[in-house]
Amino acid sequence: MNVSRRLEAFAGVVSGRHLVLRMEDIRWLTGFTGSTAQLLVNADSRESWLLVDGRYVERATEELRFAQSTTIVQPVVGGALLDEVLQKLLGSSSIAVDPAHLTAAHMDTLGAKFSVEKIASPCDDLRRVKDDDEIAAISQAASIADAALQQVVADGLCGHTEKQVRVQLDYLMKLAGADDVGFDTIVATGVHGARPHHEPTDMIIEDGHGVIIDMGALVDGYRSDMTRTIKVGTVSGEYEHMWDTVREAQNAGVAAVREGVVGSEVDAAVCAIFEREGVRHEYPHGTGHGVGLYIHEPPIFSSRCTAVLGNNEVVTVEPGLYRGGVGGVRIEDLVVVTGNTCRILTLTPKDLTCPRSPQTI
Amino acid sequence: MNVSRRLEAFAGVVSGRHLVLRMEDIRWLTGFTGSTAQLLVNADSRESWLLVDGRYVERATEELRFAQSTTIVQPVVGGALLDEVLQKLLGSSSIAVDPAHLTAAHMDTLGAKFSVEKIASPCDDLRRVKDDDEIAAISQAASIADAALQQVVADGLCGHTEKQVRVQLDYLMKLAGADDVGFDTIVATGVHGARPHHEPTDMIIEDGHGVIIDMGALVDGYRSDMTRTIKVGTVSGEYEHMWDTVREAQNAGVAAVREGVVGSEVDAAVCAIFEREGVRHEYPHGTGHGVGLYIHEPPIFSSRCTAVLGNNEVVTVEPGLYRGGVGGVRIEDLVVVTGNTCRILTLTPKDLTCPRSPQTI
Repeated sequence: MNVSRRLEAFAGVVSGRHLVLRMEDIRWLTGFTGSTAQLLVNADSRESWLLVDGRYVERATEELRFAQSTTIVQPVVGGALLDEVLQKLLGSSSIAVDPAHLTAAHMDTLGAKFSVEKIASPCDDLRRVKDDDEIAAISQAASIADAALQQVVADGLCGHTEKQVRVQLDYLMKLAGADDVGFDTIVATGVHGARPHHEPTDMIIEDGHGVIIDMGALVDGYRSDMTRTIKVGTVSGEYEHMWDTVREAQNAGVAAVREGVVGSEVDAAVCAIFEREGVRHEYPHGTGHGVGLYIHEPPIFSSRCTAVLGNNEVVTVEPGLYRGGVGGVRIEDLVVVTGNTCRILTLTPKDLTCPRSPQTI
Repeated sequence: MNVSRRLEAFAGVVSGRHLVLRMEDIRWLTGFTGSTAQLLVNADSRESWLLVDGRYVERATEELRFAQSTTIVQPVVGGALLDEVLQKLLGSSSIAVDPAHLTAAHMDTLGAKFSVEKIASPCDDLRRVKDDDEIAAISQAASIADAALQQVVADGLCGHTEKQVRVQLDYLMKLAGADDVGFDTIVATGVHGARPHHEPTDMIIEDGHGVIIDMGALVDGYRSDMTRTIKVGTVSGEYEHMWDTVREAQNAGVAAVREGVVGSEVDAAVCAIFEREGVRHEYPHGTGHGVGLYIHEPPIFSSRCTAVLGNNEVVTVEPGLYRGGVGGVRIEDLVVVTGNTCRILTLTPKDLTCPRSPQTI
């Protein structure tokens, strides 16, 4: 992944020396994918130093090829040498850190040796707009999840437990090349669907259930996110109406996503449908969020969201209704903002159904 | 899992009010398995309060049945109410937190409202000795990993990539009921074995390779950890000698584990074999570590380890040799200290081999 312009973007919004400690931010700025490192950025000189331990020198050298003009790798063994290297690089300058990205213990250690300034990292904001390589990775993750879900549904859900379906979905995504799941796969059948944050259990999927499946894959550090609600056999008229209402709301939400729109407007487009149907109180969560190196990134779509969407942001649109004793419906697409419209990355049909008879998966 | 005596143990080593913020410690003290909570413990009165948000009230009520005499659940919505509840519970008392278990930003917020005392949590130490329920969960995780590894080796490794083998192992563990993998499964074949922290690639396993497989399962929050090194077809005499040396060292390490032994003695038992063979410099990591809710817990066996092992501690013994251009060997068991000896929980035979011919997995 070509990261060469990202340090420039960072230096465009902040000045001075920054210690970047969140691994996703380090990955975004340098391409380094190891599990431990610290990145010192001099925003004024547009130089940066990746501090890694011996086990990562080889990997860092390989992975930093797109950041080579601005990044020097320094092997670090233990805290003492790290402090020494930092001291040498910093001189008498103060250093900025985001207090949300290190422990209080680490802050105490830093503060004892350096003049530390607490500032919010600009990375969350900078990472919102994706470049082509990032969109390609997210698209590939979405395609892998599409294929896994469609295969598992074609093989039949009825008679299997929520956990079994999750295991099969996760397996198929990894078999297809996903580095991992994008987040813990949710499978919620029947009345379990009424809990937005349900975790899969041994409950068996039966005729008449709606099954909420919320899943994604991880490819090159980037995640996908998709929810479908699958009707098994014959569902009740009440449930059909819930499903149709969510479908309409989700369509309205996707239609609202474009460059320049405010997050609250996407939320409002969804809520208007729920209000018309008198079910707004059955919708307890936000309408969507950014996706990238994290599964939940800014912006978060709600009535209070003031973020303005930019071109090439990748966001979800995921309205749902949750009714105790009945079940739930959630439909979610991952979309990329493309000028005056958006492109859907999660291509599994919305109207998936599944026969009632048990089959082998 | 019966947690009723754990709060008592906590109160036996500290006094005053403590805010417990690490989810594994909260799980250990109360049985609560959700992803977000805060636990306020009054060690003097032996009372505690689990602070959760609305989405977890139902789960907490169910899961805290073994802690019901000492724990009250208070729903918390957002930071303001949380602070209010804390203020009410604390009165004018100061509150102790482990500065390694919260962010600097969180510490700033707490410090603005309360008199905060920084102390190291006693939980790491308290959690070292496992009770019967914990050992049962770890044993089950170990059995699940045993079965998965033996099936994958029986199906044949040759001709498959490291990644394919990992996907298959992970799938079989979850199919057998593991909640997840215990940690990222390592599969390192041929020369890749020379990197202790190798991540699986598309390299194909071939005749003559040694394949290091380091894996574990997650059951009820507890993890297992096992490494085997599998000879594929005919390996070189040099590699056979490395393998035999590690096998002997691992035997010696396991033989040293008993109640009252110092961690450095377990390390010394392993290193004596490597020194005798003149290969001590090819052994760059520690000899073992505790395992439980975390995959790496204290004690960490090295020449500097002063921890004395207690009965019912669960630890690994995992010597290895790593030779650039040749490959590596690591053999690891998970054992539970039982008086004057230890019991091995990872029952897969050490001398697994695999035919050279490609087979289907």
